[in-house]
Amino acid sequence: MQTAGLALHTDKYQINMMYAHWVNRSHQQKAVFEAYFRKLPFGNGYAVFAGLERIVHYIANLRFSDEDLKYLSEQEENYDTAFLEELKQFRFCGNIYSMKEGALVFPNEPLIRVEGTIMETQLVETALLNFMNFQTLIATKASRVKQVAGDDILLEFGTRRAQEADAAVWGARAAYIAGFHATSNMLAGQKFGIPTKGTHAHSWVQSFSSEQEAFDTYAKVMPDEVTLLVDTFDTLKSGVPHAIETAKKLEAAGKKMSAIRLDSGDLAYLSIQARKMLDDAGLSYIKIVASNDLDENTILNLKAQGARIDTWGVGTQLITAADQPALGGVYKLVEREVNGEMVPTIKISGNPEKVSTPGKKDVYRIVDRVTGKATADYIVFPDEEKPRDRLKLFNPQHPYLQKYVKNYEAVPMLHQIFENGKLVYELPSLEEIRSYHRAQMELFWPEYLRKLNPEIYRVNLSEKVWDLKQKLMAEFMQTEE
Amino acid sequence: MQTAGLALHTDKYQINMMYAHWVNRSHQQKAVFEAYFRKLPFGNGYAVFAGLERIVHYIANLRFSDEDLKYLSEQEENYDTAFLEELKQFRFCGNIYSMKEGALVFPNEPLIRVEGTIMETQLVETALLNFMNFQTLIATKASRVKQVAGDDILLEFGTRRAQEADAAVWGARAAYIAGFHATSNMLAGQKFGIPTKGTHAHSWVQSFSSEQEAFDTYAKVMPDEVTLLVDTFDTLKSGVPHAIETAKKLEAAGKKMSAIRLDSGDLAYLSIQARKMLDDAGLSYIKIVASNDLDENTILNLKAQGARIDTWGVGTQLITAADQPALGGVYKLVEREVNGEMVPTIKISGNPEKVSTPGKKDVYRIVDRVTGKATADYIVFPDEEKPRDRLKLFNPQHPYLQKYVKNYEAVPMLHQIFENGKLVYELPSLEEIRSYHRAQMELFWPEYLRKLNPEIYRVNLSEKVWDLKQKLMAEFMQTEE
Repeated sequence: MQTAGLALHTDKYQINMMYAHWVNRSHQQKAVFEAYFRKLPFGNGYAVFAGLERIVHYIANLRFSDEDLKYLSEQEENYDTAFLEELKQFRFCGNIYSMKEGALVFPNEPLIRVEGTIMETQLVETALLNFMNFQTLIATKASRVKQVAGDDILLEFGTRRAQEADAAVWGARAAYIAGFHATSNMLAGQKFGIPTKGTHAHSWVQSFSSEQEAFDTYAKVMPDEVTLLVDTFDTLKSGVPHAIETAKKLEAAGKKMSAIRLDSGDLAYLSIQARKMLDDAGLSYIKIVASNDLDENTILNLKAQGARIDTWGVGTQLITAADQPALGGVYKLVEREVNGEMVPTIKISGNPEKVSTPGKKDVYRIVDRVTGKATADYIVFPDEEKPRDRLKLFNPQHPYLQKYVKNYEAVPMLHQIFENGKLVYELPSLEEIRSYHRAQMELFWPEYLRKLNPEIYRVNLSEKVWDLKQKLMAEFMQTEE
Repeated sequence: MQTAGLALHTDKYQINMMYAHWVNRSHQQKAVFEAYFRKLPFGNGYAVFAGLERIVHYIANLRFSDEDLKYLSEQEENYDTAFLEELKQFRFCGNIYSMKEGALVFPNEPLIRVEGTIMETQLVETALLNFMNFQTLIATKASRVKQVAGDDILLEFGTRRAQEADAAVWGARAAYIAGFHATSNMLAGQKFGIPTKGTHAHSWVQSFSSEQEAFDTYAKVMPDEVTLLVDTFDTLKSGVPHAIETAKKLEAAGKKMSAIRLDSGDLAYLSIQARKMLDDAGLSYIKIVASNDLDENTILNLKAQGARIDTWGVGTQLITAADQPALGGVYKLVEREVNGEMVPTIKISGNPEKVSTPGKKDVYRIVDRVTGKATADYIVFPDEEKPRDRLKLFNPQHPYLQKYVKNYEAVPMLHQIFENGKLVYELPSLEEIRSYHRAQMELFWPEYLRKLNPEIYRVNLSEKVWDLKQKLMAEFMQTEE
């Protein structure tokens, strides 16, 4: 959760490159980097961008403490004292453009663009990727769960299995952005204003001589929010009957029990039986909460089996994005200063999809004015005119996919966050981010959003961008021969 | 990295149970919890315990700030003001026993035992599991990599793909415990004294007009530690020849280049070819570093293919434990106070391996005096005598596995860390932890340590522990009927 003191949360090679540029007197040269990912996680059709707020705080507080400099001075690289003096004065003074948190984003489009000296743009790479990769990954996983759960209540319950404290807390926030309703993590609740939920553990029941006494005591103490965990001994023979007894006692006191929680066993069978037992006892208002290694696949299957579950507590699988625990976001140099001019640069790779797209770029989302739905994302150079008329969307690898669109709105997706080191973006509230995310989901046809085998959403380069990429690849091939 | 301000890094149900016990006036009752896992990750034969140092700092600094209390007072549960006053005074005043970091540990044996009031023992569950689960997971994954890598150098390179900042930093420490040699994360280097390593990125090469200029410049600046990344354009046609050229220039200046780094493509083929090119140029002293989604399986396969790699940079797969990104550690109540007496308690489950083992327990490692190797772990009640004579190791489910051992040393594995809230354990240095871990590895026959299909190491209950478990299960079954 710390926002200051993170200057050294970076890879050593960043410091080494900064130093090497400094010695070489090239450290003030301008550079432009773009952060993006090449492949969507989980076989999903989109990702949900998150991490910006964390990045903003990191950038705004980025400075080297005396302790940091002392540590650097002890490194075997033997950095020059004047370099460390320069670091002491270091502030991020560049420009940052970014997608808004909650935006739906796609492969190979810039999500964050960083412009500044080579020194400052290099330093921030590691932390920026660390934050963007994790939070975007969890928001995307949460969005998949949300799509399956529909209007059911979703609770983030993953803290004990999260990959350390930051993951628990920032992961809870990412899940909330994508539509979860609450978290169990109190620190996330405190820091971000996310609603928190929690009831009791098996140990509560074990702390009493009988399950009935445990339930009755809990209900007496928290009469307005009673959810009882019914699987400490035997769900249907012990837990549910005892919960019904407690509910009746609550009714006698003029109160209504909220829910029971199932945390093991066959959740389909148990929820159907428990529902029937509750209904037969005239307690149809009592909801059923389920947890136990749930994810979008188990929830979909449980629903298909007719499970009677109202609220889903999702833990390990969400907070670690267990089926793909890393988003491979990268940060590539797209322009560099040569003799006072910015020139585009490319990274070649034996692997064609790893060749970077040179030049600094903007992203427009092309939204059809008639349907109100997104048609494609369109990547242009900032000095190109904003698309307004008949627009050619082309994919040179698959010419038959070429098409023309008109009567659209071109919505700019990258927003300026820092200008010459000054924060020029007002961070939206978490509720605003959630609501922006909902609006983003509305913008897409369902075929792009489905969990399994989604349609591939178009991300097209402008002809200028495409031509430059071809030109630089050709130049590289010539150098090769 | 924060150690204070984590009182709310807990699940809401802990606070609710604390409150419910407080209202019920049962909050001062004593309780004993044990943390353990049921299943080894990655199909490994052992886990490497880690997380204790983090837990010690957490416990020692555990208090509710005014801000925390204000937040709690605003919760819908409407906690009584006197309860919040009690929290304001809260300090952890119990006892904690734990395995030492670096210990090899096994399923269903207590790794940490927490004794105190039900209130304090409940509060710490979430953070304790969060820290233990993640750090033990990564240390275990790192140990698998280490076993395959043998004497090769291992570098932890995962920060940008780690699940947020804490995971990067504590994960780097866990990897170091298990035998990694260095990390790229400077913050981990600073906080823990782990050696750091790093060279340059593709962007360094892209920042110059030619790869040769980039290499020469880097070598001029850092002549004593030159590792050149050779895959920005084409590894064998461009990168390696340019690196050789730079190495020759360094030689002319009386210096030796350290290494080249391969970061993409077929690492087996490229390393063999690069090795040949370097050797043919009389540069056999130049090492080869490889990175790119490596883990214990790819490293094993690369070695089998004759890859000529000296140093392995391991990132995403290690820092996220990608093939199993969560250790399912749990925290179960094993004893509780009833009328001033401590009584054992059990948690039943429809799933037999989820039934907890009642009573507070110690763990001895039975080490054969002749071979110096561990025979089994032996779980006893603290009031049982320390095993010294002929010892019966039995597994009631598989009677034919019964055996007797003698001439052994019974090494106590759980060490007291806190006594009545006071830290009574001197935290070992990280080097001591590493060396303890190496000694632990020496203690085990190779068949328990191998990566694939390891032998299952015995963890046996004493007859008393076994009998109590049977008795409580039988009592439960009677209640059932």
